Amino acid sequence: MARVVVDVMPKPEILDPQGQAVARALPRLGFTGVTEVRQGKHFELEVDDTVDDETLAKIAEGFLANPVIEQWTIRRVDA
Amino acid sequence: MARVVVDVMPKPEILDPQGQAVARALPRLGFTGVTEVRQGKHFELEVDDTVDDETLAKIAEGFLANPVIEQWTIRRVDA
Repeated sequence: MARVVVDVMPKPEILDPQGQAVARALPRLGFTGVTEVRQGKHFELEVDDTVDDETLAKIAEGFLANPVIEQWTIRRVDA
Repeated sequence: MARVVVDVMPKPEILDPQGQAVARALPRLGFTGVTEVRQGKHFELEVDDTVDDETLAKIAEGFLANPVIEQWTIRRVDA
């Protein structure tokens, strides 16, 4: 068994209203110094050792991210 | 300037319908070997060097996560 983390973020050129809402709210709430916030998705998968990197790439591209508007990273981590 | 990553996940004892939906769909789509999927949120913040760890902890607990049902990690990364 292995743990795989996939982080999915809006592409830099794509507006991120959720992140912008957080970034704009923070100064009003007394927190200064945060200049940008972007929000994406974080997936943690438990996979058998038989699942290779190519399969993980297909899963991420096909089902976890929307390749039109999002970019993603895949990494294996110690469980 | 520093980049800070906050990953927010449902607590282990909390049901995660989004993750479960992905986990159940994968075998039907021909991908076997993924035994569990959990979905959370991934935030990337650009912060001034004046923002200390205590402030980041307050921001994460107060505005990025719901402490009742979620847990989170905060880490500074190289931009």
